[in-house]
Amino acid sequence: MTPAVPARAYLESRREEFLRNLMEFLRIPSVSSDPARKAEVERAAHFVRDRLTAAGLRAEELPTGGHPIVYGERVQGGRPTVLIYGHYDVQPPEPLALWRHGPFEPTVEGDNIVARGASDDKGQVYALIAGVEATLQSGSARGVDLKVLIEGEEEVGSPNLAPFIRREKARLRADVVVIADTSQFAPGVPAITYGLKGLVYLELVVRGPKKDLHSGSYGGAVMNPANALTRMIAAFQGPFGRVAIPGFYDKVKPLEASEREEFARLPFRESDFLEEVGAPRLWGEEGYTTLERQWARPTFDVNGLVSGHTGEGSKTVLPSEARGKFSMRLVPDQDPADITRRAEEFIREITPPGVKVEVLRHHGASPVLVPRGGPAVRAAAAAMARVFGREPVFIREGGSIPVVNTFKNELGVDSVLIGLGLPDDNAHSPNEKFSIPDFYRGMAVMVEFLAELGK
Amino acid sequence: MTPAVPARAYLESRREEFLRNLMEFLRIPSVSSDPARKAEVERAAHFVRDRLTAAGLRAEELPTGGHPIVYGERVQGGRPTVLIYGHYDVQPPEPLALWRHGPFEPTVEGDNIVARGASDDKGQVYALIAGVEATLQSGSARGVDLKVLIEGEEEVGSPNLAPFIRREKARLRADVVVIADTSQFAPGVPAITYGLKGLVYLELVVRGPKKDLHSGSYGGAVMNPANALTRMIAAFQGPFGRVAIPGFYDKVKPLEASEREEFARLPFRESDFLEEVGAPRLWGEEGYTTLERQWARPTFDVNGLVSGHTGEGSKTVLPSEARGKFSMRLVPDQDPADITRRAEEFIREITPPGVKVEVLRHHGASPVLVPRGGPAVRAAAAAMARVFGREPVFIREGGSIPVVNTFKNELGVDSVLIGLGLPDDNAHSPNEKFSIPDFYRGMAVMVEFLAELGK
Repeated sequence: MTPAVPARAYLESRREEFLRNLMEFLRIPSVSSDPARKAEVERAAHFVRDRLTAAGLRAEELPTGGHPIVYGERVQGGRPTVLIYGHYDVQPPEPLALWRHGPFEPTVEGDNIVARGASDDKGQVYALIAGVEATLQSGSARGVDLKVLIEGEEEVGSPNLAPFIRREKARLRADVVVIADTSQFAPGVPAITYGLKGLVYLELVVRGPKKDLHSGSYGGAVMNPANALTRMIAAFQGPFGRVAIPGFYDKVKPLEASEREEFARLPFRESDFLEEVGAPRLWGEEGYTTLERQWARPTFDVNGLVSGHTGEGSKTVLPSEARGKFSMRLVPDQDPADITRRAEEFIREITPPGVKVEVLRHHGASPVLVPRGGPAVRAAAAAMARVFGREPVFIREGGSIPVVNTFKNELGVDSVLIGLGLPDDNAHSPNEKFSIPDFYRGMAVMVEFLAELGK
Repeated sequence: MTPAVPARAYLESRREEFLRNLMEFLRIPSVSSDPARKAEVERAAHFVRDRLTAAGLRAEELPTGGHPIVYGERVQGGRPTVLIYGHYDVQPPEPLALWRHGPFEPTVEGDNIVARGASDDKGQVYALIAGVEATLQSGSARGVDLKVLIEGEEEVGSPNLAPFIRREKARLRADVVVIADTSQFAPGVPAITYGLKGLVYLELVVRGPKKDLHSGSYGGAVMNPANALTRMIAAFQGPFGRVAIPGFYDKVKPLEASEREEFARLPFRESDFLEEVGAPRLWGEEGYTTLERQWARPTFDVNGLVSGHTGEGSKTVLPSEARGKFSMRLVPDQDPADITRRAEEFIREITPPGVKVEVLRHHGASPVLVPRGGPAVRAAAAAMARVFGREPVFIREGGSIPVVNTFKNELGVDSVLIGLGLPDDNAHSPNEKFSIPDFYRGMAVMVEFLAELGK
């Protein structure tokens, strides 16, 4: 009997229970960016602590300057140590009107469970925890030590995580980090993600007159902050999707020919992708394919605009303030601190007369490329192949998981990014979903991975 | 005894009552742009009808496709007819947080009454009605016929007014229109406004993907509608405050040398104005003074922006839609239909690939210059001089009062724009105010004007 057999049996016998638990998890509106949700975020931490305890780990909530980190471990020493990372916080659910039901009322629709956080990251992280539970409670964890770190601030840039990891280096020592916060390449095409983009997220606040003015009486006399904001944000956008900040591309590592070939071999059809996103056409930097732009070229995206009259109809107001949130996705070897500095310098240069600007720094993250060799990646690939019935593909991803860099820099350990979600899971959008069969597959992958690694 | 004496005495003896009535008027949240306020807008119409009746006019509410027009008259025939125009609707009160008290809880603060609509236009229009009441009820209206037309859709561009005037040409026949919906030049410096800007107010809706996307996973693959919107709105803005639409300036009538001299003689101090608006500095089209830019040069102002995440903090969303409201103020002889056509053509030219745009036409208005000679203007100037103790100055204004053009085109009659408000009344802004002494002066001006004209 392979060590995975009793654990897989344990999973099979408790499918209903695991799904019920996930629904309970999804019912908690743990929106980390919303100060009004503080108590709910804490409830989610309690939930995770209790599930880690049930899995057989010594679990506790560790306070931070923000939301608590939930940590659990079972360590004997002298054998490979797996550190699982995930997050229990979720994105804001807005715009609420576009949800088919309440974002925190998880609903089974066909094969999917629909709720905020279903895929990002509650469903994925709980699949890993369930896999740990099955392994430990069935007595299958022969050769592996386990540590689990689930944070509550991933969606606000993990401000307290890096200091925590730095402080707790000894406790967190591990041989590999496992993260399930990415996607399969397509349904049934499992993927290990080896490249992630970095991020610089800024908010530009442009202020002019001390109060809103009548645009008829005062227009032409003062610089309108909303005029200024649109001009400034436009100035960031170079021709054909390029970013116009001077020096922005200096450190960009060109795509390797082998990567471009690999990308081109993936089962990707532009027409399917276009249908999925529902845009009039695809668009972006010239000279690169869609996958190359998504995965390996830096970008500039406006994430939010607000100024003046935002309701129905017309109001002839010259607004006193305009706000724009925007983010730049970075690729190796761009450095978020360097890009932030360049962006702020650029803002100083392009600020028109007659307004004052303030730049708020939201989160930043370094881009990352993780090695594709090594026993942990091989074990993960074998586990995924066994469960999905197909070898995983190696892909990159446009999102950021800053902690991958932190683990590398602080603990010297690489991460294996096991994608259980799907590209169309609506992470960060209304009607976020997660495939229930993939939820169960994720548990099985964890069981097989631990069995493989502990051989 | 001059005919004005008994009417002035009537006013004096009823000051408290008129102020109480104004407060009742201001308590009605007649926001014409808000469908939820329909009943309140109707209540304001009832109020006006009742005050016209009390003034001694035969008054009624006339239905339109939108909010009713209140009309009253007292006509004997064979003598000069004065048609008073005003509006009983108000701007939306938002942003509510900036008001010192509820916008529809009129509050006396020193010499001012503070409420939405205090100056624009309830306080001013009710001052004229009170002047009519004093004239008629004191038996002083010897030589003038009176008509009063108060509409409820001025703040949404008066969509039903021009058709009404066209339909009711016979009934509305008049020798002069009197409007109090402008300002004194400065406190104690009464003004007759002879020039108004026109307006084209558009809303640009940019749509891309069918739903909000994760900006990390999808950024670079599709055109971001908020990126596109900022680029497009920036493209409207030429260098140094010029409007970049091709042909935009073709019909602009240059300022006359005599006007520039008159403007320059007005008691205007840039430092005072700068302090009033509270901007870092004044700014606008090169080669023109601040007053020239405000009054006689066309402008482009963004009035509203909304897209993506507008709340606190960060959300890495690639929004599916972005909306920008903007307006262009026009000067003689620019034509709003021509400018709308040019703007829409320009939008077609600058729409980037990968998004679809829709243009919503909010209201439009023609610019206007009214003759400064004639008996009605002379009578108004004499009345203002008598009440304010100072000859009025002749000024222009950056706002639009489209009905001035309609009266000219449909009835062949010019308007006299008597400014009772003040430039810092916060029309369209929080804490809108109106000077109570000027409220009483306005009634007296109406009394004196009717006496003068009826001589």
